[in-house]
Amino acid sequence: MVERPLPIAVDAMGGDYAPRAVVDGAIEAAEGGLDVVLVGDRPRVEPMLDPSRLTPVTRQRLRVHHAAQVVTMEERPVAIRTKQDASVRVCARLVRDGRASAMVSAGNTGAAVIAAKTVIGTVPGVDRPALAGLFPNPNNATVVLDVGANVGVRSQHLREFAVMGHFYAQEILGTPSPRVGLLSIGEEQSKGTELTREVFEVLQSTGLNFVGNVEGRDVFRGTVDVIVCDGFVGNVLLKTSESLASFLLTMVRDTLRSSWRGRLGALLARPAFAGFRDRIDWAETGAAPLLGVKAGCFIGHGSSGPRAVANAIRRAREFADAGLDAKIRDKIAELHDREKLHLHAAADA
Amino acid sequence: MVERPLPIAVDAMGGDYAPRAVVDGAIEAAEGGLDVVLVGDRPRVEPMLDPSRLTPVTRQRLRVHHAAQVVTMEERPVAIRTKQDASVRVCARLVRDGRASAMVSAGNTGAAVIAAKTVIGTVPGVDRPALAGLFPNPNNATVVLDVGANVGVRSQHLREFAVMGHFYAQEILGTPSPRVGLLSIGEEQSKGTELTREVFEVLQSTGLNFVGNVEGRDVFRGTVDVIVCDGFVGNVLLKTSESLASFLLTMVRDTLRSSWRGRLGALLARPAFAGFRDRIDWAETGAAPLLGVKAGCFIGHGSSGPRAVANAIRRAREFADAGLDAKIRDKIAELHDREKLHLHAAADA
Repeated sequence: MVERPLPIAVDAMGGDYAPRAVVDGAIEAAEGGLDVVLVGDRPRVEPMLDPSRLTPVTRQRLRVHHAAQVVTMEERPVAIRTKQDASVRVCARLVRDGRASAMVSAGNTGAAVIAAKTVIGTVPGVDRPALAGLFPNPNNATVVLDVGANVGVRSQHLREFAVMGHFYAQEILGTPSPRVGLLSIGEEQSKGTELTREVFEVLQSTGLNFVGNVEGRDVFRGTVDVIVCDGFVGNVLLKTSESLASFLLTMVRDTLRSSWRGRLGALLARPAFAGFRDRIDWAETGAAPLLGVKAGCFIGHGSSGPRAVANAIRRAREFADAGLDAKIRDKIAELHDREKLHLHAAADA
Repeated sequence: MVERPLPIAVDAMGGDYAPRAVVDGAIEAAEGGLDVVLVGDRPRVEPMLDPSRLTPVTRQRLRVHHAAQVVTMEERPVAIRTKQDASVRVCARLVRDGRASAMVSAGNTGAAVIAAKTVIGTVPGVDRPALAGLFPNPNNATVVLDVGANVGVRSQHLREFAVMGHFYAQEILGTPSPRVGLLSIGEEQSKGTELTREVFEVLQSTGLNFVGNVEGRDVFRGTVDVIVCDGFVGNVLLKTSESLASFLLTMVRDTLRSSWRGRLGALLARPAFAGFRDRIDWAETGAAPLLGVKAGCFIGHGSSGPRAVANAIRRAREFADAGLDAKIRDKIAELHDREKLHLHAAADA
């Protein structure tokens, strides 16, 4: 008999449309065969799992774990520190205690980051867990990190990001030797800020496939697999891209609707566009993993609908099954050892 | 008799397709009634102005001014310092000497910035001229500055950017009271970096219509008219957006071509899409003005084709006619005076 994996803990109270959208997303994931623990206010969540809507098998895959408190989207992330029973914190606790294999939240990003870091804990050697955004490119996808968990990083943090991104691309995107680039504003090593120039040298000594500086234009080109940057820049990049994708789609739609020829053309092209929509859907459904914590933690948009939540749950499952945290831990440890060697060598010289 | 305005000085040697694409762009602008001085290697440029291709009126609007040197795209911007006769430097000199009213270059950005700053000079009170990018939004356009002239700015520089962006939006976009936002990663004043928190307070005291922090998602939404940020972040934002727009367009095209229904639909929708293309063309034709120098200086992409060059020349003309530099100078002076008053008041207290 195959052992069933631990369920994914889902913050039922997190997000603009919680708990309804989260519960519906969990149902979708359960229908696909995944086990989910919905963490939140039981009196509100339980009735949404109406058995008349669900098959017995699906219903059995869904459990509710009560949590009495919530950190709202408007609260400062540190509010999590005093709310011991906040849903997102309880999710982290279930993971830490071996009762769930990963967690998902579409709530307050900062609060989720703090909960994951302090309750689940970081991989040894990782100072700053990073949110890894996934952007489509003509071949596959580009991993950009950090997209918002850290502002004001130092060079060793960007090195951690590079290592984590490397394994993420390898395990999740199936890229054998991911090309890692440093986000800057020109390809030459001399371009950029003091930090990027410093990091450039640091990344050259990691043993990763470091391809040097890359620019914003490389995100959607497939010229690089992993892009590392500070969380401020990464967050701007993420949100700008989402906003542009949605602006362009709206414009395409409005343009087509503005004439009968356009409407007829759109009707004919609809099947073709369905595939297109799936590909650029990342803007709506992309939950980002917080890499560098001891287990999977996926953080989605506050605006996540059921589909986005279901998608995040599936990706959390995949992440847990790949054992990524262990791989990141080992490589970081190796780099630290190597650095110690360098330091010893330097001291001996 | 109406006096003819001074011509626009165009760096004929700047850009990946120079001088051919630049000359063709200048011809297009001249056909539209604008006077242009093409600055560059006369033996190469002059023959491209083949009189058999041009009407006498057009030919008369085009002059060539010889410049013996070039700063290539690959050279470090500081190379301009030792190349007294570089085409981009000669453009700046023509403007300084009152022989051209503004300049356009699609060459080495850094070199153009240095030439404009040192030869034309900055508006009194402006420390850091900034490149202003124009992004489409559902209502009109959003000005983002700086998109790449300055890396590592301080709060007073961002204040200068805000003032310059305000006037640019007012004069060029016709927005009566431009809403100015500070690019950050959350709307609350507490979000962002040390710098953004400091700038937030500075911007509140400018008398501009400061709407607080904005995010990457606001660039294409029409929720704000001017967005100020450091040149590193702005450049990433600009290049990421261009890359995404081109990626999505390619994907739409490929999707449509992949089936007969799609091809037929595309054919029908073509007129509708023509308008669409014009609107998102900013990615290909957007030359950015360097605000804060004593005259118009437009810097285009290295990849600029004739259409982009012609467009940049037209915008340089418009800029010069609006007298923007004088308006920026007066407002900056007013802010400085106000600050001095504050300082005096503080000293008296």
